[in-house]
Amino acid sequence: MYTAPLKDIQFVLNHVADINKVTAAINRQDDITPDLVDAVLTEAGKLAADVIAPTNHTGDQTGSRHHEDGRVTTPAGFAEAYQAMAEGGWTAMDAAEEYGGQNMPMVVSSMVNEIWQSANMAFALCHLLTQGQVYALQKSASEEQKNLYLPPMLEGRWTGTMNLTEPQAGTDLAAIKTKAVKTESDALGTHYRISGQKIYITYGEHDMAENIIHLVLARTPDAPEGVKGISVFIVPKFLVNADGSLGERNDVHCVSIEKKLGIKGSPTAVLSYGDNEGAVGYLVGEENRGLEIMFGMMNHARFSVGLQGLAVSERALQQAIGYAMDRKQGTPLGGQSGDAIINHPDVLRIITTMKAEIEAMRALAAVGGAAMDLAHGGAEADRAFWDERAALLVPIIKGWLTERSLAVTSLGVQVHGGMGFIEETGAAQHYRDARILPIYEGTTAIQANDLVFRKTLRDEGKAVFTFLDEIDAEMITLAGNDHPVVASAAMAVTDALADARLAINHILSSANDPRRSAVSGSNYVMLMGYLAGGWLMARSAAKAAEQLEADGADENFLNAKLVTADSYMGHALPQVMALARSILAGDDAVLAMRPDWLQG
Amino acid sequence: MYTAPLKDIQFVLNHVADINKVTAAINRQDDITPDLVDAVLTEAGKLAADVIAPTNHTGDQTGSRHHEDGRVTTPAGFAEAYQAMAEGGWTAMDAAEEYGGQNMPMVVSSMVNEIWQSANMAFALCHLLTQGQVYALQKSASEEQKNLYLPPMLEGRWTGTMNLTEPQAGTDLAAIKTKAVKTESDALGTHYRISGQKIYITYGEHDMAENIIHLVLARTPDAPEGVKGISVFIVPKFLVNADGSLGERNDVHCVSIEKKLGIKGSPTAVLSYGDNEGAVGYLVGEENRGLEIMFGMMNHARFSVGLQGLAVSERALQQAIGYAMDRKQGTPLGGQSGDAIINHPDVLRIITTMKAEIEAMRALAAVGGAAMDLAHGGAEADRAFWDERAALLVPIIKGWLTERSLAVTSLGVQVHGGMGFIEETGAAQHYRDARILPIYEGTTAIQANDLVFRKTLRDEGKAVFTFLDEIDAEMITLAGNDHPVVASAAMAVTDALADARLAINHILSSANDPRRSAVSGSNYVMLMGYLAGGWLMARSAAKAAEQLEADGADENFLNAKLVTADSYMGHALPQVMALARSILAGDDAVLAMRPDWLQG
Repeated sequence: MYTAPLKDIQFVLNHVADINKVTAAINRQDDITPDLVDAVLTEAGKLAADVIAPTNHTGDQTGSRHHEDGRVTTPAGFAEAYQAMAEGGWTAMDAAEEYGGQNMPMVVSSMVNEIWQSANMAFALCHLLTQGQVYALQKSASEEQKNLYLPPMLEGRWTGTMNLTEPQAGTDLAAIKTKAVKTESDALGTHYRISGQKIYITYGEHDMAENIIHLVLARTPDAPEGVKGISVFIVPKFLVNADGSLGERNDVHCVSIEKKLGIKGSPTAVLSYGDNEGAVGYLVGEENRGLEIMFGMMNHARFSVGLQGLAVSERALQQAIGYAMDRKQGTPLGGQSGDAIINHPDVLRIITTMKAEIEAMRALAAVGGAAMDLAHGGAEADRAFWDERAALLVPIIKGWLTERSLAVTSLGVQVHGGMGFIEETGAAQHYRDARILPIYEGTTAIQANDLVFRKTLRDEGKAVFTFLDEIDAEMITLAGNDHPVVASAAMAVTDALADARLAINHILSSANDPRRSAVSGSNYVMLMGYLAGGWLMARSAAKAAEQLEADGADENFLNAKLVTADSYMGHALPQVMALARSILAGDDAVLAMRPDWLQG
Repeated sequence: MYTAPLKDIQFVLNHVADINKVTAAINRQDDITPDLVDAVLTEAGKLAADVIAPTNHTGDQTGSRHHEDGRVTTPAGFAEAYQAMAEGGWTAMDAAEEYGGQNMPMVVSSMVNEIWQSANMAFALCHLLTQGQVYALQKSASEEQKNLYLPPMLEGRWTGTMNLTEPQAGTDLAAIKTKAVKTESDALGTHYRISGQKIYITYGEHDMAENIIHLVLARTPDAPEGVKGISVFIVPKFLVNADGSLGERNDVHCVSIEKKLGIKGSPTAVLSYGDNEGAVGYLVGEENRGLEIMFGMMNHARFSVGLQGLAVSERALQQAIGYAMDRKQGTPLGGQSGDAIINHPDVLRIITTMKAEIEAMRALAAVGGAAMDLAHGGAEADRAFWDERAALLVPIIKGWLTERSLAVTSLGVQVHGGMGFIEETGAAQHYRDARILPIYEGTTAIQANDLVFRKTLRDEGKAVFTFLDEIDAEMITLAGNDHPVVASAAMAVTDALADARLAINHILSSANDPRRSAVSGSNYVMLMGYLAGGWLMARSAAKAAEQLEADGADENFLNAKLVTADSYMGHALPQVMALARSILAGDDAVLAMRPDWLQG
């Protein structure tokens, strides 16, 4: 049971992320019209609800299966759902038109991607990874490679994977050992023979597409040590002839798939390269520049995982609302016997605070997508600004949305009481599924290091203080708003800004001792997330109050927006203050702990 | 891999909960000697580590199994482990001596119970439930019933269950429908025929003991409606002859067991009573007084579940420390290649903050256990005071320890990175297992209602303000401590007390609108937990600083205690401020949400 939250999405696009300004700035106002956006979202919502969402719970129960011959079968309905996405043109949404893509701005595609991920996160991961590879190839592959590999992926006939991790090389890619030896042949041209083992390869083997294109990090024999000696290769499951038809099976095989806590519908493969003659791979870009190429797509991939945090939270919320509207238990205070449990004050609190945080997440994601659109396609003079802004927002979006998805899905379980602990109900699945999100595509600590060192210390706080000043200015305006919820929200955010500035100055002042800055990083990510959420919820409240004045206003919807904003200020925003306190007081305390004191 | 944290437990007992004062006050100083306590904890630690802990992961993988004939088999090793507990006399620890018990004070038995629950929570649940029933029968059953049923349970030959929930009656016990019809026979004496269905019956059927004694809530035909018409019955799986030998199989059968998110080793049964002639049951106490009897053991049971929150957190911490000491990945800032990941500042932060919260949990549990001992066995003149104190602490201990166990076990997963998401590692199991704790034995909302309505509004805040004044007085003394960590901890707690008072006064001032008080309840429980944790961590720091002055002091251990206290003040205590803000600003916001606005 899933219904795409189209009204919320439209509200965020039109009133919080200001899509019309974005499409004007990137000169797309003529093709990305309100009607088109409306149609896109509506159709995505239908496909998600009718075809994809029904596979979510069953996919979790069955899981993907690995067979002795190396095949992997996905749960019932997955292949059909992917086929349906392909037929609807959805697999082509984000890519450039010259390869068959639809070149949709990210501010729109982010909202569509939320819908797929809510419908079935384990399933939609395949699309997410394929999009990531399409993005990387568009940016870094040769024209010949793009023409050969991109169209079938955009048509949904082939899918893509990212092969980074090895048992000894997870967060630390410098430790990669997979080998790539250059060679030539008449049939294959210049290519490399790849050998080694890759782990945690999402959709590394499956039965949803004709071919799988692996993007693989490996080392040539004479490469320098560490991260400067890593190259990236295209390694197709089936070799691809010059005319695009499939050739021989390549020497890459799925050894096993992992037994995971969640996203069980998705196969997480251990891939063995080069058991025989070596897998045939083709270099992307230049040798030893692999990490740069991967980093080029990192913002995109991290943003996508942040969206998953929003998506699984939304799905958990819908399930919790459904249950709370239906389940009767006890007589709510001030209510009547037979009233559903939504009328119990604590259940109402849980659901209202879930909804408030989810709306803040969605607003921040849309604003982040818009920043990326402006960075790539906005006026030349503004691109550097938006590039900096997007770079600042991405670790916050990835870190905050995914960490909070743990809490939101946990609250979803809590609403169900004992039924939440029974797998049949489905609430527990969201809780399990979400747990991967603060881990993959860079753990929260990695986002934190990015935010602290690259995005804050490197420019001595310039980008982040510019961002805070903008929020400040907007809040000064909103503090004079006639609607009391808007005015008090603006004042709450202004208070939070002061706490945030103290915390950031503390981090800047400890720049000469990077271990202190690093200790505060995760709390800093969370602080910025809560603050940015507050900023956009205040804006959301102001827009709702404004629209309430219009004739024929959707009063219930807009009043609910004011309530969620108010509730955000009361229940989520105070975390800025607490986290600032932790940053100010907590770094020395932690670093005083000696690891050898921890055992015995 | 589990090692009982004996040094921490001893420190808490001797220096935080002041066990010598407790045993003196209850006149047990001669039998509960330091040597005895030491021996008890050491032996429990051995049994837990050697026999019980190894069944934890395998038990999760296998799960309990239901067979067509109604039998339930527990995972390999469970029956042997229960046998070992029985042989060691551990199943008799808490009960009165006249029935074969050891009459151990709760301040000690709580620490022993932490050890069992850490070793294998799914397994130790059987003991927890049996203890609960022993407690209830001791308090409310007839002498004849006690003599018949208690000894075999204390010998570990029989186990006990609590049968409250029915599909329509979870939190709301007023809705119970199970029937009990009074009758007589020569063979069975005065008894009742019980019929109905009970769900969520932990260890409702299993193969670890000869007999299972169900304590069942049911209604007699002429009983008043609602909670005033509920009676409680002893319903043995096998009827018990007057000489204690087993008679016929009773008419109660296990229909199925649940497929759960966690604690999979424990069977959660659906029990059907009276499929044939009606199950034979014996009334405990008087008719229609069942809920009172159950409430008489409620503090005990809720406290025990709070301990499970501590226990699973400790187990997750030990696993995380083990992994972080062993795993190498990247070069930590300021460290060297080959250093384990514990040296990464964010990993050190996670583990230090986990450890700090766990120490606070343990201290609060021990102090809560001591309060219950003093309430039952202290000087007559003081019992009312300690009874009130225990009644205040129990919902805080149940609510805070279990809610925080979700966060702590989640952090344990995070330390493992990608490996944390793979079930083989075991970190995910703790995360899954913990999720039941804020649900069963009264959800956090139920603890919150108890704390708000019965423990705060009813006496207009007298008990809670008395508690806060005590903390205040202690902090005033500690603020003058020579050790800077102690002094600053005391000042931090003093600040937090001011926030707590504001929040409580706000709740008191909204007493005329109980929906507002109820909205704040869960945040109030959490606020009080963080505050009480801060109180005891400040005390812990003071004691550690004092002992550091002694000759031959265990410097590493005591310095670590100072670090965890300091870290608690920086990373956990600021939540008091944030939660106070939520209580002050967040109740009206939530109640403004209309349930019908949540759909569409």
